[in-house]
Amino acid sequence: MKKANVSKSTRGVSALGRKALALHKKLGGKIRVVPAAVVKNRADLALVYTPGVAAVSSHVAKNPQEAREYTIKGRTIAVVSDGSAVLGLGNIGALGALPVMEGKCALFKTFADVDAFPIVLDTQEPEEIIETVIRIAPAFGGINLEDIAAPKCFEIENRLIDELNIPVVHDDQHGTAIVVLAALLNALKVVGKKLTSARVVISGAGAAGTAIARILHVAGSKNILVLDSKGIIAEGRPDLSRHKIELATFTNREGETGGLREALQGADALIGVSGPGLARAADIRLMAKKAIVLAMANPVPEIMPDEAKRGGALVVGTGRSDFPNQINNSLVFPGLFRGALDNKVTKITDEMKLKAARAIARLVPRPTPNKIIPDMFDKRVAPAVAKAMAGKKAVAKVIS
Amino acid sequence: MKKANVSKSTRGVSALGRKALALHKKLGGKIRVVPAAVVKNRADLALVYTPGVAAVSSHVAKNPQEAREYTIKGRTIAVVSDGSAVLGLGNIGALGALPVMEGKCALFKTFADVDAFPIVLDTQEPEEIIETVIRIAPAFGGINLEDIAAPKCFEIENRLIDELNIPVVHDDQHGTAIVVLAALLNALKVVGKKLTSARVVISGAGAAGTAIARILHVAGSKNILVLDSKGIIAEGRPDLSRHKIELATFTNREGETGGLREALQGADALIGVSGPGLARAADIRLMAKKAIVLAMANPVPEIMPDEAKRGGALVVGTGRSDFPNQINNSLVFPGLFRGALDNKVTKITDEMKLKAARAIARLVPRPTPNKIIPDMFDKRVAPAVAKAMAGKKAVAKVIS
Repeated sequence: MKKANVSKSTRGVSALGRKALALHKKLGGKIRVVPAAVVKNRADLALVYTPGVAAVSSHVAKNPQEAREYTIKGRTIAVVSDGSAVLGLGNIGALGALPVMEGKCALFKTFADVDAFPIVLDTQEPEEIIETVIRIAPAFGGINLEDIAAPKCFEIENRLIDELNIPVVHDDQHGTAIVVLAALLNALKVVGKKLTSARVVISGAGAAGTAIARILHVAGSKNILVLDSKGIIAEGRPDLSRHKIELATFTNREGETGGLREALQGADALIGVSGPGLARAADIRLMAKKAIVLAMANPVPEIMPDEAKRGGALVVGTGRSDFPNQINNSLVFPGLFRGALDNKVTKITDEMKLKAARAIARLVPRPTPNKIIPDMFDKRVAPAVAKAMAGKKAVAKVIS
Repeated sequence: MKKANVSKSTRGVSALGRKALALHKKLGGKIRVVPAAVVKNRADLALVYTPGVAAVSSHVAKNPQEAREYTIKGRTIAVVSDGSAVLGLGNIGALGALPVMEGKCALFKTFADVDAFPIVLDTQEPEEIIETVIRIAPAFGGINLEDIAAPKCFEIENRLIDELNIPVVHDDQHGTAIVVLAALLNALKVVGKKLTSARVVISGAGAAGTAIARILHVAGSKNILVLDSKGIIAEGRPDLSRHKIELATFTNREGETGGLREALQGADALIGVSGPGLARAADIRLMAKKAIVLAMANPVPEIMPDEAKRGGALVVGTGRSDFPNQINNSLVFPGLFRGALDNKVTKITDEMKLKAARAIARLVPRPTPNKIIPDMFDKRVAPAVAKAMAGKKAVAKVIS
């Protein structure tokens, strides 16, 4: 590794960033593809490759429903991105997305023994993304869509769910929604409030905000307000895109208007999935007593925990590991796909998502203001989430 | 593993086939995707994934030519098939192809430490195959096309070579051609003949036969006859497809016509890449003294070695491991892509292919009738082939 090289091109990069660059250069990529069986002589070769493999190929071709037993399809998923919305970096394209997707694949294996391979696409056209994923799907038992920009992510995911008989999950939506619901359930327990009656304000109507609103609605929440950069989303607001029109049908039942301050009046929870600099302590003071603030923007949250507490928040969570209550979707995606593979799930249902959120929440049976969510390295998490994928509906339609 | 299950659905399968089925079911796929670095705590996670990975993503997005250093692109290739011509099984589709592609990926790692991942396609349309491979190419440092039927394989490979800046190799063509040339060079040494003047008959004008004819021509062979199912390919034969018209421009300079028996008159070498049952001893007797027969069909060669020898052949090779002189392209593909990755090769040139064939041949400095080619497990082979990829032309255009 040439240290000079790294330094020259990384002026302005943080110490952590420089350390990450050096590690990545040393590793040369974060995943490896290795044989499951040792091939050390002709006898091994005759079984793993020709001529023995011909019997396996014939068998699988004639019995495609058994592909999961005889090939990697039963244990392997694709992590697919077009690089259009990578972390907080925006549209940096396929190669820029690759380090994130590799990292995610490493976590899949580490947390849940799921084999995951990154597919980064040299196209950002929804139709081309859809047809490409369909064409490469045969080897995979699931598709994790990642870091694809809203609103196209909704159409891409919906179409792929319809067209493929393996689970397709846009993790920025559902991984985030599930873990936020888990955190919120325990936070509500801490403050002694109910999901059905709590006023929940979601700042951000992108992939995460939309999916959070939907899962809260399915979970029974009846008082949700979603804000985009122009304020509260309400039926009849003239500038709404398709998915925001849909959001307006099940949120904001009173037809409220205004911005964040109007929304926060008497609110029980604020969920930030919009970016840093959203709110100050004075804004939090508008909320109800024993307010909950889940500020998910990473690395800089919508409001820092100390500031939120100054505003009167009782429970505060962020996406960061250096504050209490780290709410991170790595609590969800490894177990979700582990369970989907184990149970030959073809579609992830709303019911499974709710069960997953509740399973995560239950791992902290007596939540406190500083402990509403399990640790990311808690080995009970992935199995608990995996189990939530084993619903009756999940196994009803077992096809390859 | 339920033994009853396997037996029931595999009536008529050979003992080896049944053993292969059982092994594949036990393994559940032949490759695994594993992390290159252990992620056991938050500090690891912060480097491998968020927030540290953001610096790497930014860097690679701004400096795409460095993607090979920081991501799996520098060490990973795709093994791509549409399942249209799998082994001798024919068009069995994507899932049928998957066990073969997985096996090939296992060999890439075993023989040359190349990370290879199988991509099996749910389309057999050339244009769709081409656009799909282009779209998924960013994560890969090379593309191994495999078991794609002729003649579409030629167009697909040519277009991808033109459109991508990573090497694209249809192994059924070039892996086979390179290893056959290596075997032929040493066989000619054994019989004391020269490639330039030897009469070489190739039975089969598919992917392998076409590529063999081309490499022999480039290597200096001036007397090549290629036969398809209708006989000797000759300029002006009315039924020729595009690639056969091209074959006729540099083979069969005398404009010979007829079938196998006419072609074999006085021939010095017969290369079979057409299928079992091609020739009998009587046919081989038509050949010149000290004839060479390389009967590559697998598992049943165009003519069995004992039968070829009864016809007077002095050197006989097959694709099988249970006879001397196993001519198998696993001598080529691992080292070829190892060398291509090591040298950041963007196109595999004819010169590199010739160098690879000569390098393999040189590993048997004193060939005999029963030893014209190195053993598949000879550890010198992959490095020798890899070195052949390091030509001046190879490194001239170093881009990601």
